[in-house]
Parts: sequence; structure tokens; C-alpha cells
Amino acid sequence: MADATPSLVLLAELGMPGQRIELDHDPAHYVVHVCRARPGDTFWATDGAGHLAHLRLVTVAPSVTAEVESRVRQPRKRECVVWCGAPEGTRADWLVEKLAELGVGTMQPVDCARSKWEARPSRMARWSRLAGSALRQSRSVYLMRIEPPRRLTELLESIPPGASLWFADPDGLKRVSPPEETMSIGMIGPAEGVDDRERGLLEARGFKPISLGESRLRSETAAMAWAAWWASGADG
Amino acid sequence: MADATPSLVLLAELGMPGQRIELDHDPAHYVVHVCRARPGDTFWATDGAGHLAHLRLVTVAPSVTAEVESRVRQPRKRECVVWCGAPEGTRADWLVEKLAELGVGTMQPVDCARSKWEARPSRMARWSRLAGSALRQSRSVYLMRIEPPRRLTELLESIPPGASLWFADPDGLKRVSPPEETMSIGMIGPAEGVDDRERGLLEARGFKPISLGESRLRSETAAMAWAAWWASGADG
Repeated sequence: MADATPSLVLLAELGMPGQRIELDHDPAHYVVHVCRARPGDTFWATDGAGHLAHLRLVTVAPSVTAEVESRVRQPRKRECVVWCGAPEGTRADWLVEKLAELGVGTMQPVDCARSKWEARPSRMARWSRLAGSALRQSRSVYLMRIEPPRRLTELLESIPPGASLWFADPDGLKRVSPPEETMSIGMIGPAEGVDDRERGLLEARGFKPISLGESRLRSETAAMAWAAWWASGADG
Repeated sequence: MADATPSLVLLAELGMPGQRIELDHDPAHYVVHVCRARPGDTFWATDGAGHLAHLRLVTVAPSVTAEVESRVRQPRKRECVVWCGAPEGTRADWLVEKLAELGVGTMQPVDCARSKWEARPSRMARWSRLAGSALRQSRSVYLMRIEPPRRLTELLESIPPGASLWFADPDGLKRVSPPEETMSIGMIGPAEGVDDRERGLLEARGFKPISLGESRLRSETAAMAWAAWWASGADG
């Protein structure tokens, strides 16, 4: 029998095979009211942390519960973090959606000398919902993390060892093959660009300048283009 | 002295050096009212067909006229056409903007078996304005052409010889280097996907399936990711 939901369901906790779990409001609404699943129907779910589970709906009232039939972990071979300078206006919303769809692990807003993020709680909450929709859409088992904004200097002090480091720069290296490293970080300046001091810090820390094409790109387009370039390096 | 406009001005006709030309309503408004240029000020303009000119404003009333000081042609080494199946809802607007920013030569909407475009004149006019803004933003001298929708079978009969042909497919080739060919065409299916017959036609015509990463992408994200992959192959 086909599964009851076309999309992957995102659950806070997946439980282990044989366990019965209660669904929170949003996933319960999606499974029962949007997809009209009935007791006995099955669906796929993820915790957004690399686990995929097949569940069978048990009750729909008074609470929505399901039994975990199977659960597997899907390890990631490659992961990337995008350090994003602030784009103009409301362009961050679709940036969140596109980075999440392209399989970016973490979006890290970066406060630069020339431009800072406005990360109100309502905005962070909306971004988190957008990342969840993108996960369902792309049937990915990894939910993109969205970190609160941090200063570039602070971030430069907490880079994991062995990461491949990139910096989007119209005058950078051309025709570069995407990295095969387990962890990559791509830094994209804000709409106003990074200043000379910031560029110096990035270069000193080993960030390689990379040109993403012949055009001058908006900040959010460059972030998305870097992520697409990184994603094109997946080996399956 | 600095130029009077931060953006490149898009003009229907550029004229030759020494000639005086009259600016149409939109560029005249931008130069005189938005940028407050005065007679004697200079600015850069393009015809969107590969020419870049430096002009000097002569009169601002009753008509806005400028004299062409220099004019050069910037040839393109590589060009690409994106054949786009219809994305969902209003997602085409930003697709137009992003493809134009990434330096795509032509956006060709494709009507497929499972989904057709709605290309009302008002919509085509809005896309044309978006492509113009993206040109100014990216300071490109090539305006992205936006063709009216055509059927896939029709398009397959008019492919220029020597073009490198690609078809976005989650199960396609991985870690492929971007094409160096002068002309490349990338086909991206609509939100509902291409059907088996269409896939067969593309393969028979020599379109190579390419995977753009590990995720399942929305139609417009795949189109943009293909364009970003193509753009990353620019050699300067």
C-alpha cells in the first residue's frame, strides 16, 4: 500500500522501532487533516538529524499517535556551512529556503563592518519554518540549522580543523572543482561587501577567494550560487 | 570626476562616438531624477547586446540628451540557454531575476506534457523589467532574452550545432565539470517532472543527465543551480 503522505514528516523525536510516539500539533495536523491519513496508514518521517523512520498511524483522537516500524540513520559524507553577510531588505527569506533545499548544513548569518543582520525572534522563527518546509520538499533527513548572527572575528576563532575554506570574490579563482572535504565553509560578504581588514583576516586564515562566474552577483545570489557549486560536488 | 550613476543604464540604442542621442522615459528618469545628474555629468550605458558606452549628459529639458564619448564591444566567450519547465505559482519571477544575474543568455520557458506556462503579456512585461534590473545590478552588457513558451518537441528541432546539452536529473551524472563550449543548453523539467516520452526524446537528442547535488530540488531551484554550475565554469 502507498504511504499516506507525499512529503517527509518532520518530528522532534522519532522514537525507536516498536515504540509508540505522540505527534506534536503541526505534524499531527499535516498527517491527519492535510493528508487525511487514517489509523493503519503509514508514512515516512525524520528528526532532521539524519534519521529516517517508517511509522504506522495508531490513533487520530484524542491524540495523534504512531508506531515506529523501522528507523535508519543516513550518514552525511559532506557538509557545508554558509557564512552569509546580510542581504538587502527581505531577500533573506528566500535565501533560507534555497540554501536549505540545496542541502546546506548550517546557515550562519555574519555581522560585518559595513552591515549587520536584524535577527528579531519573529524573523528567526519564520526562517526555521522555511527550513522545515524545504526539508519536506527535498525529502532530506537533515534540517538546516540557522544560527543567530555572530561577528566575523568571533567565527574565525572557531573553525573546525580540516575544513575547506572559501570566500566569494568576483576577482577570485576561476573554474575550481568543488571540495571533496567532509566539511566546507563558504563566506559571502554582505550587500555592501567586506572591508579590507575583513578580507585580510579571511585570507590570513586560509580562505581561498573563488569567482562564481562573470557577473557581479547580489549577496544572496552569491550565497546560493556558492551552495549550488558546493552541491554539484556530491559524489552520490 | 566620478560618474553620475552607480548602475549601468540600459538604452534601446547606444549611438556611435560623437553622436548625440535622446534618452527614453525610463533611463531619462533614472539619470536625471533618481541620480540627479546635470549637464556635463557622465555615465555608463549598454544596449544589452554586448556594447558598453560612456556618455556625457548634454540637456535635461525639454528632452534628455547625451553625447556618446566612447563605445566598445565586449564579446562573450560562453553563452547558455536555460529551458525551464513551469515552476509552481509565482516562483517564476525570482527565477527570471536569478538567471539574469547569473549571466544566462536566454530563458526559454518550455511547455511539457505535465505542465504548461501561463505567459500572459503582463507577466512577460514584468519579467522583462526584472531582467533589466538584474542587468543594471550585475553591470552586465548582455540583457537576458526571455522567449515566449514553446513545446519541447519544437525546441528539440532547432538546436544550434556544437551546443553542449544537459538535462537536470537527480539520478544523473555526478561531479561533472562545467562545459567550456561556446553554447550550452540546460533543460529543467516542470514542478511535475518530464514524462518518460520526453525523457526519451532528450536522451535520444544527446542531452546528458546531470545531478545537481544530493537533494531533490524544486524546479526553479534546479534551474538556478544549473545556471550557477554553468557560471562557475567561466575562465575569466
